[in-house]
Amino acid sequence: MVKDFSAQMNAIPEGWVQAMAMTITLATKDEVRAELTIGQQHLQGYGIVHGGVHCGVIETLSSMGAYLFARESGKHVVGLENNTSFIRAVRAGAKLHAVATPITRGRQTQVWQAQVLDEKDRLVATGRVRLLSLEPDQSLAGEQVKGALSDR
Amino acid sequence: MVKDFSAQMNAIPEGWVQAMAMTITLATKDEVRAELTIGQQHLQGYGIVHGGVHCGVIETLSSMGAYLFARESGKHVVGLENNTSFIRAVRAGAKLHAVATPITRGRQTQVWQAQVLDEKDRLVATGRVRLLSLEPDQSLAGEQVKGALSDR
Amino acid sequence: MVKDFSAQMNAIPEGWVQAMAMTITLATKDEVRAELTIGQQHLQGYGIVHGGVHCGVIETLSSMGAYLFARESGKHVVGLENNTSFIRAVRAGAKLHAVATPITRGRQTQVWQAQVLDEKDRLVATGRVRLLSLEPDQSLAGEQVKGALSDR
Amino acid sequence: MVKDFSAQMNAIPEGWVQAMAMTITLATKDEVRAELTIGQQHLQGYGIVHGGVHCGVIETLSSMGAYLFARESGKHVVGLENNTSFIRAVRAGAKLHAVATPITRGRQTQVWQAQVLDEKDRLVATGRVRLLSLEPDQSLAGEQVKGALSDR
Repeated sequence: MVKDFSAQMNAIPEGWVQAMAMTITLATKDEVRAELTIGQQHLQGYGIVHGGVHCGVIETLSSMGAYLFARESGKHVVGLENNTSFIRAVRAGAKLHAVATPITRGRQTQVWQAQVLDEKDRLVATGRVRLLSLEPDQSLAGEQVKGALSDR
Repeated sequence: MVKDFSAQMNAIPEGWVQAMAMTITLATKDEVRAELTIGQQHLQGYGIVHGGVHCGVIETLSSMGAYLFARESGKHVVGLENNTSFIRAVRAGAKLHAVATPITRGRQTQVWQAQVLDEKDRLVATGRVRLLSLEPDQSLAGEQVKGALSDR
Repeated sequence: MVKDFSAQMNAIPEGWVQAMAMTITLATKDEVRAELTIGQQHLQGYGIVHGGVHCGVIETLSSMGAYLFARESGKHVVGLENNTSFIRAVRAGAKLHAVATPITRGRQTQVWQAQVLDEKDRLVATGRVRLLSLEPDQSLAGEQVKGALSDR
Repeated sequence: MVKDFSAQMNAIPEGWVQAMAMTITLATKDEVRAELTIGQQHLQGYGIVHGGVHCGVIETLSSMGAYLFARESGKHVVGLENNTSFIRAVRAGAKLHAVATPITRGRQTQVWQAQVLDEKDRLVATGRVRLLSLEPDQSLAGEQVKGALSDR
C-alpha cells in the first residue's frame, strides 16, 4: 500500500498552493491528485482561467509526486522544465480536478505528466514536467535543501 | 511612439496578476515588463519560488503584448502553449523583474518570449508562449470575447 | 471503420520519412503508427539515436494524423510547436516503434501526443505537437497548399 | 581565443548530421553555427521542410556546444528536453543557417537556445534544449560514454 501524504500537504499553512486554494486529494509517489474551484484569483483579463494557473497546477502535482519518490532514497527534486498545452477555456465557478502520474523516475531526473479536467472530465490542460534529483547534502538557492515534509 | 497601457493593466482590481502582486511597468504591443517581490504566495514546499509563478509571469507578459498587438485589428488572443525553463532558484524577499518581446506576430498566431530576472539581472526563468488569434465575433468558453481594455 | 492510408504514405518516394527509413504501419485520423530500425543515419556523435530523430518521428505521426482528420473538412494543417522529452538512450540495431493519438482536434488547432518505444515496449521518447488548421485556399510558403494525398 | 572544432565535427563520416547534409561552420563551447541547403531529404508531405529537421538542427547545435563545454571538465552530456517553435515554412532550394548559444551552463544541467534562419535572416524556427551532465565514468545505453572527439 503506497502511503498518501495529502493530509500533510494540505496542512502546509501558506504558499502558492494555498494562495490558489488547491486541495490535494491524493499525494503518493505513484499519483497525485488535486481539486480547485475557480475564483477571481485564477482569472486573466478575458475572465477565463489564467494559463499560469494550469502550468502551476501541473507543476505542483508533478513536483509533489517526484518529491515523494525521491525522498525514499533521501534525495530532493527541483523542476527543470514545464511545458503545458491549453485545451479548453474555463470561467469562474468551474470545479477543476487534476491528476499527475510518472513517465520516468530515474536516478538523475524524473518526468511526470499531468492533466487538468473539468466537472465533465473534459480535458482543460495537459503538460509534462522534468525534474532534477538533488543529493541530500546539496544546497538550493544558497540554503540546505529541506523538503515540505522535513519537519513533520 | 507606441502607447503604454501599464496604468490600465494595473488598475484591473482582481485576478491572477493581482493575487501574485505583480506590477506591470510597461505594456505595449512591442514589449511588456513587470516587477514582483517574492512573498509567501509565490513559494512551494522547499521555500523557493514555485515554478508555476515563473510560467505564469511569462504567460502574463506574453499574453498582454499579444493582446495589445491583436486589438489593433479588432482581434483577441488565447494562449495555446507555454514552455518554461527554470534556471535559478529564488527565495522570499527577492525582487524579480520580467520582460517579454515578440518572436513572430502573424495573422493567425503569435509567439512571444519572456525572461524573469533577479536584482542582479541574473536569469531566473525563460520561456515562450504561442497564442492563437480569435476573430472579433468569436466566442470563448461560451461567451463573447471581451478583452481587459474593453470597458476602459 | 476508419480508413488506413499507410500504403499511400509509404508509397511517397522521397522526403524526410524516407531518408529516415520509417515504415508507416497505420495511418488513420484517430491513430498513426510507424516502425524504424536504427541505422547510421539516426545517430549522433555519442553513437546513440539523435534527439532530432525522436522529435521528427513524433512530428511525422502527429502531422499525418492531424492531416487525415483535417482533410475530411477540406482543410490542411501545419505544425506550430513540438516539445519532446527524451527518456531512454538507444543504439544502432534497435527496432523502434511509435504511436500517435489525438489530444484535441478543434476547428482551429489540433494537439497530438506520440510515444517512441523499443522492442520491449520501454518508453524511449514522448512528445506533443500543436498544429494549426489552414483553410483550403490558404497558401503556405508562397504556394497553394497541396497535401500528401492530393494527387493520389 | 575559444577553440573551433567545426573541422573535426564535419570530418565525422556518418550520422544524422551527415544524412541531413548539414555543414558545421563554427563549433565552440560558446556558440555553434551550421548551414544546410534544403533538399528532398528535408521535406514532408506538403513539400515544405519537415518540422523534425528544425528540431534536429536545434538539437544538434545545442548538443555540440554543451558537449564542448562539458568535456573541459571531463564530462559528457545527454539531451533531456527539446521544445521547438515553427515560425516560417520553407521549400526546397532554400539555404538555411542556424546558431546556438548557451542560456545556462551549470554543473548538472545546461540549457541552450538555437535559431534557424533563411537567406534573408528571417526566423524559420527557434527552440531550447535542456541537457544533463554525465560523469566521466557513467554509462549510456549500456556502454561507456565516448564523445565525438574522443578518438581525435
